[in-house]
Amino acid sequence: MKILYAVPGIMSKSRMGTKEMERRKNVLQSFAAPGTIVDIRDIPDGPESIESTYEEYLGIPNTIDLIVQAEKDGFDGVILGCYADPGLDGARELVNIPVVGPGVTSMHYAAMLGHHFSVITIMDTVVPTIEEMALKAGCERKLASVRVVDIPVLELNERPELLKERAMEEARAAIKEDRADCLVFGCMTMAFSGMAKEMSEALGVPVISPPIASLKFLEGLIASGLSHSKKAFPTPPKLR
Amino acid sequence: MKILYAVPGIMSKSRMGTKEMERRKNVLQSFAAPGTIVDIRDIPDGPESIESTYEEYLGIPNTIDLIVQAEKDGFDGVILGCYADPGLDGARELVNIPVVGPGVTSMHYAAMLGHHFSVITIMDTVVPTIEEMALKAGCERKLASVRVVDIPVLELNERPELLKERAMEEARAAIKEDRADCLVFGCMTMAFSGMAKEMSEALGVPVISPPIASLKFLEGLIASGLSHSKKAFPTPPKLR
Amino acid sequence: MKILYAVPGIMSKSRMGTKEMERRKNVLQSFAAPGTIVDIRDIPDGPESIESTYEEYLGIPNTIDLIVQAEKDGFDGVILGCYADPGLDGARELVNIPVVGPGVTSMHYAAMLGHHFSVITIMDTVVPTIEEMALKAGCERKLASVRVVDIPVLELNERPELLKERAMEEARAAIKEDRADCLVFGCMTMAFSGMAKEMSEALGVPVISPPIASLKFLEGLIASGLSHSKKAFPTPPKLR
Amino acid sequence: MKILYAVPGIMSKSRMGTKEMERRKNVLQSFAAPGTIVDIRDIPDGPESIESTYEEYLGIPNTIDLIVQAEKDGFDGVILGCYADPGLDGARELVNIPVVGPGVTSMHYAAMLGHHFSVITIMDTVVPTIEEMALKAGCERKLASVRVVDIPVLELNERPELLKERAMEEARAAIKEDRADCLVFGCMTMAFSGMAKEMSEALGVPVISPPIASLKFLEGLIASGLSHSKKAFPTPPKLR
Amino acid sequence: MKILYAVPGIMSKSRMGTKEMERRKNVLQSFAAPGTIVDIRDIPDGPESIESTYEEYLGIPNTIDLIVQAEKDGFDGVILGCYADPGLDGARELVNIPVVGPGVTSMHYAAMLGHHFSVITIMDTVVPTIEEMALKAGCERKLASVRVVDIPVLELNERPELLKERAMEEARAAIKEDRADCLVFGCMTMAFSGMAKEMSEALGVPVISPPIASLKFLEGLIASGLSHSKKAFPTPPKLR
Amino acid sequence: MKILYAVPGIMSKSRMGTKEMERRKNVLQSFAAPGTIVDIRDIPDGPESIESTYEEYLGIPNTIDLIVQAEKDGFDGVILGCYADPGLDGARELVNIPVVGPGVTSMHYAAMLGHHFSVITIMDTVVPTIEEMALKAGCERKLASVRVVDIPVLELNERPELLKERAMEEARAAIKEDRADCLVFGCMTMAFSGMAKEMSEALGVPVISPPIASLKFLEGLIASGLSHSKKAFPTPPKLR
Repeated sequence: MKILYAVPGIMSKSRMGTKEMERRKNVLQSFAAPGTIVDIRDIPDGPESIESTYEEYLGIPNTIDLIVQAEKDGFDGVILGCYADPGLDGARELVNIPVVGPGVTSMHYAAMLGHHFSVITIMDTVVPTIEEMALKAGCERKLASVRVVDIPVLELNERPELLKERAMEEARAAIKEDRADCLVFGCMTMAFSGMAKEMSEALGVPVISPPIASLKFLEGLIASGLSHSKKAFPTPPKLR
Repeated sequence: MKILYAVPGIMSKSRMGTKEMERRKNVLQSFAAPGTIVDIRDIPDGPESIESTYEEYLGIPNTIDLIVQAEKDGFDGVILGCYADPGLDGARELVNIPVVGPGVTSMHYAAMLGHHFSVITIMDTVVPTIEEMALKAGCERKLASVRVVDIPVLELNERPELLKERAMEEARAAIKEDRADCLVFGCMTMAFSGMAKEMSEALGVPVISPPIASLKFLEGLIASGLSHSKKAFPTPPKLR
Repeated sequence: MKILYAVPGIMSKSRMGTKEMERRKNVLQSFAAPGTIVDIRDIPDGPESIESTYEEYLGIPNTIDLIVQAEKDGFDGVILGCYADPGLDGARELVNIPVVGPGVTSMHYAAMLGHHFSVITIMDTVVPTIEEMALKAGCERKLASVRVVDIPVLELNERPELLKERAMEEARAAIKEDRADCLVFGCMTMAFSGMAKEMSEALGVPVISPPIASLKFLEGLIASGLSHSKKAFPTPPKLR
Repeated sequence: MKILYAVPGIMSKSRMGTKEMERRKNVLQSFAAPGTIVDIRDIPDGPESIESTYEEYLGIPNTIDLIVQAEKDGFDGVILGCYADPGLDGARELVNIPVVGPGVTSMHYAAMLGHHFSVITIMDTVVPTIEEMALKAGCERKLASVRVVDIPVLELNERPELLKERAMEEARAAIKEDRADCLVFGCMTMAFSGMAKEMSEALGVPVISPPIASLKFLEGLIASGLSHSKKAFPTPPKLR
Repeated sequence: MKILYAVPGIMSKSRMGTKEMERRKNVLQSFAAPGTIVDIRDIPDGPESIESTYEEYLGIPNTIDLIVQAEKDGFDGVILGCYADPGLDGARELVNIPVVGPGVTSMHYAAMLGHHFSVITIMDTVVPTIEEMALKAGCERKLASVRVVDIPVLELNERPELLKERAMEEARAAIKEDRADCLVFGCMTMAFSGMAKEMSEALGVPVISPPIASLKFLEGLIASGLSHSKKAFPTPPKLR
Repeated sequence: MKILYAVPGIMSKSRMGTKEMERRKNVLQSFAAPGTIVDIRDIPDGPESIESTYEEYLGIPNTIDLIVQAEKDGFDGVILGCYADPGLDGARELVNIPVVGPGVTSMHYAAMLGHHFSVITIMDTVVPTIEEMALKAGCERKLASVRVVDIPVLELNERPELLKERAMEEARAAIKEDRADCLVFGCMTMAFSGMAKEMSEALGVPVISPPIASLKFLEGLIASGLSHSKKAFPTPPKLR
């Protein structure tokens, strides 16, 4: 089974570079079931990182092209590599292989493991987007809060101690003040920072890494012959 | 007061052409308050018409550029010229002048005039998008149904009798079966077909033309010194 | 276009008097589009001010009479001059000209300009009424909070500094604690105090004046030939 | 224990007259617990019957006066004698004795006895009012439908066979098409027609008579020393 | 009229013993209408007290047997003696006499007396259960909060002063911070502690005792010939 | 990785017998990832099949014991083998290994693959239970309908042609009339009948088999070190 992790930005050309892409691929591969091969690709033109809906939109056309190509290249499924799931519905309209978004997937996973979950994300600017995702996903009643570490995406990797400290602070507040009993990282860079297990043990609640949850969900779909509904995400009429 | 009607597609290069753009501008101008000047512009590259979320996404980056330019050119406000309000949130992040979307505006107008409204739109493929718009807008309890005439956008102008007949059929069904007491055209081409008044008189319920509602809402905002909230739609951090 | 601002109380006989009525008419006139003539009338018998549902009910029968008379007198539309929109549905049942309520109108305006709005009103006693208005309007998910300055209506005009100070305090708390990104004055006397622009500049969020929003909404309706749905607000059977 | 059934209209002067008032009092008395004394009073001026929100408003000021007087006269509680519960909140603001509305009470009773209930009422014109009552009461998810017999209130008593036939038709449709498992009469005159038991036996679901449910709820409140919350329905500030 | 209070645990064999059972029966009898006879029975095997869903489940099969036997023994109705209403739906499937649960009944009572209610219960472990009850009952919008005294059930009777102090603290916080205007005890042992009247007087809001509310609701049902809907709670197919 | 499929009934002693248990285990094993070992166990005493909430409750105490024993026996996770997820919350309170329910899991899977799903289940008597599950799961807005084949569980295996015919009829109606774009079998016996793939191809929408979805979800949880939240499902205080 071949799975593509599709980055909707120019990660290879950004500060993070191909080394970080390689690292993320390896993290995913380490969680993959026997027989699963994970690959990673980014887009030629688009945002460096996504901290606004504007930046989401910039990368979507190229990301959909990337996913269409992945289907042609024989991939069995695609993980959209941004918490905001940018262009997920559009991509699903163009391909038959399952495309999963870490945002919506992780919210449903959290809803299946507890009563109320909080999303810990980067900056205030993305909070409304995450709340709207929960609403579209039908998970809004389970969303206790969206909290932010208030660190720009491109600085996250460079300040790991600050990130961990701020993430723990917000996580504790989410549990105590917002009654969260499950936590979700609302940013791929936070998720790939590798803090989930340590935080979960310290806090006593599940901490969900959206890319890992997406990988396992996608593997399960492929193994059971499922994909997104083409009645829900139909091929655009002019492309039929 | 100068207002731009921004078409998120390549209308001037499509079958509809500059003549239709001119006609739409004139329709809007005819409803404008004394002192309002309406202009219309489309984008250089993008979809011919929008019948899927994929096509929405194709035009958004150029449409946002168009709106940013409009602000520089001294426009006082912008109407996004597609019922799906493609990229509305992204555009609002980049400018301070009010940008209004005919989709969300017409839904709130309908909610203010009755108890339940129905949207009459083009094809099945856009129904989930319209339902999600209602949800994001907080109008979902007021949405009685979304019904389709099942005619592609680019054929609407060429088959005016069929359009009117199908629109009336669906409108009657919406009123009788779905209990709608207010109707909204869920497509700009349908709205600019000029059927609203005749249908309203025949059916005995308000029939809202989203571009006209958007024009009047926008004029009112500008006259009272209001715009969208920059706290809700903040400038992307990297652009500050 | 002739518009009536209908006061559902005995303002001319109250402490506020005809001078305040004249002032309010002039404020509205100053925001009106060219060609709009605004008039103001109150009722012969009813409450001095409205701080309870009981007082709402006291003035409704006379207010509906006033609105029926306005239609006969050739007015093109009516603004109901109280934030609680007392008797709005009843008045709409009796006339064909559009009748708009500042409460519901301003809530929908706020929902169109941001994600969550707060209403700043007078006293605790009207909070449940405003929450129920949001619910009936289908705006409840967008309502962040209702906050009170805790000053009786009839003292508002006499203590402008205290009013401004208290309004700013509650506005700041709404933004910070309740995450409001848009504000609405939940009382006509507060709205006519003229603080909206100054507060908006100080706070960085839109501050909506319900009577102005109602005026602009009503002008737009009249200009586009719309009114409330008579299917939603039918003439009482015994009066047909 | 003394209970008043307060009619918010001029029943004694209507076609129905004092005889019907006496009959209703006797029906209530027959369901009362030992020791309960039921009385009935109407208002001097107001609507003959209520088939619109306009008519609701006409009778409210006098009905509130009637209820205030009832408290002075030593009544222990009041049933508001119209399904729309006109002025219930206003009346509760002015008195300390419990005032109960048959509309909201019967909806909660139905919610406690099944999963989905339907209201069978008189005419289309009151359907939105009943839906808004369910919303305010927090029962909207339990409301399967509101169906109408389409007979004016003042003709109900004169056409008992037609009423029964139409009520049974709508009840069967509510059960089969709307999945109702509990029924409520949405009109006092229908409720006092005495069809509940026969219909319940024929249909196999509970059929709730709102005035009887209100009587039993009110007796229970009085017996356990409860009333409506004065924090929720505070005395109007100017009357303190 | 004969009513059974069915304890879904082994109270007679617990620390509380038959003396407490007798006391509870007498409290209920003292609130009963003339002609009502209240009896109390517990189950032979099951939990000592209920502080988890696990303990709820342990007692349900025997409790349903107890209720089936009650119907055979000529009881006219049953009150399920635990706030969580354990097995209420299952019991209703097996009998025709009305079975009422203090949890759901008290929530609807609170919804009828105010705008928002809080439940004051024992421990954190039961909070999600109570929130789910409100959701199933269709009362979730009226539920302001669930607050806990954090005292195990079996210690409640032994520490009456601590219980009263903690209950008052949480009640005050519910009113002030959560805007509750009505309170409900979320535990039978708390309800039978007899604090309701004193707390209500001190706090100025209704304090509902669920077993008393259930008794009065049940008496009213029996007196008016109503029971739960057998369409909603059908006899299991294999038992027909 | 060792996974137990825990049957909350006496399947080995029923008409279905150990042969059917063996067959189900093999079906699950055939979908398992390399390295996963699936076992199946039923309970010594309980219902033959579950067609009511009463029968759910009968088997829960023994099923929880079975799950507690599974944890002691070294299983890494448990699938609760009934669509109603009977006792899921109670079981989660007692163990640390993940316990997943096919009902809630399949609903979230459907919500992740489309916009609206329908559940095709056995009989009318379980419909309210399934609707309440969707509500508790926070999926109620995504649930288009619950439809029934109207065949008792124990006859399903004996009438495979009738089952397939009825399932297809209801599936077609769900897609056309209820707008479902994804389907879920609401009964384990239906799910294990092996119709999912054939139906999905005939209907053009995903058809989810809850036990397979549960298996893949559970494998993913175990592989990523996740379990249900012990803050959401705490150990009962008396067992600590």
